[in-house]
Amino acid sequence: MSDRPATPYLDRVTTPADLKAFSDVELRQVADELRAETISAVSETGGHLGAGLGVVELTVALHAVFDAPRDKLIWDVSHQSYPHKIITGRRDRIRTIRQKDGLSGFTKRSESPYDPFGAAHSSTSISAALGFAVARDLDGKSETGHGDAIAVIGDGAMSAGMAYEALNNAGHLGKRMIVILNDNEMSIAPPTGAMSSYLSRLYAEAPFHTLKDAAKGIVSFMPEPFREGAKRAKDMLKGMAMGGTLFEELGFSYLGPIDGHDMTQLLPVLRAIKARAHGPVLLHVITQKGKGYKPAEDRADRGHATAKFDIPSGEQKKAASNAPSYTKTFAKALLQEAEQDHRICAVTAAMPDGTGLDLFNNAYPSRCFDVGIAEQHAVTFAAGLAAGGMRPFAAIYSTFLQRGYDQVVHDVAIQRLPVRFAIDRAGLVGADGATHAGSYDVAYLSNLPGFTVMAAADEAELVHMVATAAAHDSGPIAFRYPRGEGVGVEMPERGEPLDIGKGRMIREGSGVALLSFGARLKEVREAAEKLEARGLTPTIADARFAKPLDREMILTLARDHEALITIEEGAVGGFGSHVAQLLADEGVFDQGLKFRSMVLPDIFIDQASPADMYAVAKLNAEDIEAKVLDVMGVARMSERRA
Amino acid sequence: MSDRPATPYLDRVTTPADLKAFSDVELRQVADELRAETISAVSETGGHLGAGLGVVELTVALHAVFDAPRDKLIWDVSHQSYPHKIITGRRDRIRTIRQKDGLSGFTKRSESPYDPFGAAHSSTSISAALGFAVARDLDGKSETGHGDAIAVIGDGAMSAGMAYEALNNAGHLGKRMIVILNDNEMSIAPPTGAMSSYLSRLYAEAPFHTLKDAAKGIVSFMPEPFREGAKRAKDMLKGMAMGGTLFEELGFSYLGPIDGHDMTQLLPVLRAIKARAHGPVLLHVITQKGKGYKPAEDRADRGHATAKFDIPSGEQKKAASNAPSYTKTFAKALLQEAEQDHRICAVTAAMPDGTGLDLFNNAYPSRCFDVGIAEQHAVTFAAGLAAGGMRPFAAIYSTFLQRGYDQVVHDVAIQRLPVRFAIDRAGLVGADGATHAGSYDVAYLSNLPGFTVMAAADEAELVHMVATAAAHDSGPIAFRYPRGEGVGVEMPERGEPLDIGKGRMIREGSGVALLSFGARLKEVREAAEKLEARGLTPTIADARFAKPLDREMILTLARDHEALITIEEGAVGGFGSHVAQLLADEGVFDQGLKFRSMVLPDIFIDQASPADMYAVAKLNAEDIEAKVLDVMGVARMSERRA
Repeated sequence: MSDRPATPYLDRVTTPADLKAFSDVELRQVADELRAETISAVSETGGHLGAGLGVVELTVALHAVFDAPRDKLIWDVSHQSYPHKIITGRRDRIRTIRQKDGLSGFTKRSESPYDPFGAAHSSTSISAALGFAVARDLDGKSETGHGDAIAVIGDGAMSAGMAYEALNNAGHLGKRMIVILNDNEMSIAPPTGAMSSYLSRLYAEAPFHTLKDAAKGIVSFMPEPFREGAKRAKDMLKGMAMGGTLFEELGFSYLGPIDGHDMTQLLPVLRAIKARAHGPVLLHVITQKGKGYKPAEDRADRGHATAKFDIPSGEQKKAASNAPSYTKTFAKALLQEAEQDHRICAVTAAMPDGTGLDLFNNAYPSRCFDVGIAEQHAVTFAAGLAAGGMRPFAAIYSTFLQRGYDQVVHDVAIQRLPVRFAIDRAGLVGADGATHAGSYDVAYLSNLPGFTVMAAADEAELVHMVATAAAHDSGPIAFRYPRGEGVGVEMPERGEPLDIGKGRMIREGSGVALLSFGARLKEVREAAEKLEARGLTPTIADARFAKPLDREMILTLARDHEALITIEEGAVGGFGSHVAQLLADEGVFDQGLKFRSMVLPDIFIDQASPADMYAVAKLNAEDIEAKVLDVMGVARMSERRA
Repeated sequence: MSDRPATPYLDRVTTPADLKAFSDVELRQVADELRAETISAVSETGGHLGAGLGVVELTVALHAVFDAPRDKLIWDVSHQSYPHKIITGRRDRIRTIRQKDGLSGFTKRSESPYDPFGAAHSSTSISAALGFAVARDLDGKSETGHGDAIAVIGDGAMSAGMAYEALNNAGHLGKRMIVILNDNEMSIAPPTGAMSSYLSRLYAEAPFHTLKDAAKGIVSFMPEPFREGAKRAKDMLKGMAMGGTLFEELGFSYLGPIDGHDMTQLLPVLRAIKARAHGPVLLHVITQKGKGYKPAEDRADRGHATAKFDIPSGEQKKAASNAPSYTKTFAKALLQEAEQDHRICAVTAAMPDGTGLDLFNNAYPSRCFDVGIAEQHAVTFAAGLAAGGMRPFAAIYSTFLQRGYDQVVHDVAIQRLPVRFAIDRAGLVGADGATHAGSYDVAYLSNLPGFTVMAAADEAELVHMVATAAAHDSGPIAFRYPRGEGVGVEMPERGEPLDIGKGRMIREGSGVALLSFGARLKEVREAAEKLEARGLTPTIADARFAKPLDREMILTLARDHEALITIEEGAVGGFGSHVAQLLADEGVFDQGLKFRSMVLPDIFIDQASPADMYAVAKLNAEDIEAKVLDVMGVARMSERRA
């Protein structure tokens, strides 16, 4: 605690309204202290650092100029929202971020009135802001000054189709709204001196009728490299308009680019926008991810996500891992397959590191495709590759594959194209919380005709499933695996294709059969051990496939046991539901079977460790044990009654 | 048959290769005959007319210049593919289009090698073409002449985010591929004379190094209105590039715009592209939807979709309808609600007619939003409206809502925002076939915490569900209803909100309970009548809600009956799976219950009448009857055995 930075100005900020008392020079000081506080907090908790450091000045300037929560400030993705949280009444809890019962790592409506629209997946902010802007105007309030809608969106997020759709529609509707393009890809040194003083004059000086005039003024004034940037950004926006309402003007006023770390630029421009904006405005701000913290600035990812770290050195404090991560296991197994087969290629939607495909890209750059934040395109592009005779692996997190769901149905499943889906982050994911949970993939894939759906029980199984997918040319196939480390099983030399639709018996027992699908198998084994101590001898099976089901194995388990319990890391509608459908169709329930399906509960589960989240979900070993005892206990009671 | 047009040239075309024998002048004649044949065929079958008539010349020119099926020609959406089908070996079956056992109304891989990638939903073609282009180059074949990938996409489809994502990626990759922007929004009269002769010279004359040079030549040559169009289209593309790999060039070569009905422009430009294209090329073609058939040209929708019609007059031969359509019923009910509540507003993704929202738009234009082909944005925009205090109804077909699935999860459900989803075309939809089936919505919505999911059993129920949704502010709510006419029930004066999570008993019986969810109720009633004749007296209940379930009603039905059968117009994972989960959790199966869940089968069902499709699905009255007999018959046999 004694290491914490001195923050005399920031200490006076409980809500954004407190910023109104500061001079512009003092706001600069607030920003410096906010940066120090952000670094200090994340050093204790880990989390997303670089994005927040890049928008410290923007955060202070926005809150100093606008009036949240009346004005609606929407941070796209919201990795960059930590400084915003600190100055919107959450400083006392910022060191709980991403932890159980702590602050969310993202903006969240239920957490604060200063978070009018939560985010976590990319590129939603412009759509949401437009909704607020339209709602405001429909409610009959005056257009200016009452509830501005402001989206802050990065240049990466702007690449998603959804952002394009939203800009397109916003331009068409012409409502007053503000989009701040936070551009941290440009490496142009920010201008100082003449330009910033011009910007300062912008607000103070003689009136201009529209912001377009101001923009023209800014552009003509800028030094050459900036003028070029401005021109390009304008082209971008004008261009986007064309796609939607072809050959009509989009209708955004463009301002910028300005230096997003220079309060003498930010404050006057934002004030000008607030005072004079009509219709949609885009402010192009150049920032540097990781700004102001040397170790972050020096890292390739600009300190995007970090473990706890030592502030002076930036050294991260990571626990040593015992087993290889599922992600790494997948990546290595895919490489093995690719060495043997030149038709194997890989597609990622802006997650080469997260999916492990950076390894593949190093080895086979011509066969690895990072398509950007564009899951819709990623899926259909993979379908095209498959139709063209390749063997594409689309490596997409469970939660993000939701973005390409229609393409999975329409382009892959209906055409039976052999796209291989490597679904990482299946099940509950820990610190990223409910927005990133991979809860639904088994349900939304397993009812698609012709699909094969697998889940890996451990890292060795994952290797075999990669081989199975590589060999499977007769239709689409998916395999899911969780976030984090494997369970430490012995690894095969190389993957061997599994028999499609065949599960495996783990141990033969009697009375109750535990039918696991996916990585809960470890918990199921632990539960069985606990149950043995109570004299029960559960059978354990690993289904491997949710589709096609191993009918023979399941019907045999049902016939030979008093109770059958399915366990999976997914919501209802998935594996257990397909098993229930089979058992019903086959008349197994007619004569009685103690059937239970353990699935994720009907709630969104807040961030915590995966183990803690699964405790909430009641899917840990003790929960499985309790379920068995309950089911078999009820049985004994009813027998007694009979 | 005697009315069919004389088509001496077209008669010589069995496959596209036959076009190579014709002179350019003769190809013009082929196109004229192809237009006449298309009109003749659609007059007999009904279907999509305007789009095909707009691309008759383009179709002939593409097939005359390129070499399908080696070259991959992908029609976006593919409503415009009827002429393509006629000249790719399917002329003999063109008068079966959209009918049971006939040709699909869309391109389809399983139908013809000339359909390398099927389409039906919009904006997939560029992604697919890029997949083919990349696959070709990875396979090590020479870049030019071996398997060109060509996407033909309309300006409307270009507005979807997915198209933007694909262009972005294509420009980045730089592979040779061809995108033809079929622009039928421009009403500029096509140029003739000087320009077309210039274009003719383009191919014949002195070499130019890149198509960009050719484009420059074309632009500088064009009359002023066209030059402006070309400039704008270039801006559009250049602009789109910026979004993805910010401030890099996109890398498409642009050609056009040219008159898509003038073979003397189309043929030389396509030949030039084929001969000289490096990297991605976009050809901008101006066409007129409905071209060459006066009654279509004169209609507001340019003959987009039509019933059978009389060729001279264009008069459509529609059967008189007995009951109001569900769509119309929804639209009227929403209007009634909107009259009382200014917060009710409506969102459609380019389907104002199809969803019935054109009515709403006429009455409340400021509260009705057509966002274009942009379901992702539509959903999150509606979420923003809800967060801003409005009561938005997002009216989206079941199949198209798949495009916004992640937004439903991430922006609506997790935030519990009261967006109302009006899900038209739920279940099997008839002539549009498998790609448009609304099979999955109940499954992909009902496992989202906090969602309310309803299905209307008839048109009166739909009115009440609109009222229920309007009144429901505590979270998201969806109601689904089928394509087509209602069942002719008496209509209420106005809708009354239903009790959330409460079903209704239709008739009390014994032995077997039929628990219907949605519009199969009519079939269930018919089945019950048939069963009565056999001495059975089934109970019938209408669940109304898949979520929350009416636990009390369902458990009572299970307790009081030997058998419980659920019936729904959806895939496994939906209503029946949720009922099974409840019954399992409550231990109902422990003592035996003849439970069956009748759902859509695990196949994609080809187009036919909805009744015929439901026959394939085994969800008609006779199938329900048979299921009951089977279940109860098994019972009697086992009793006999005991």
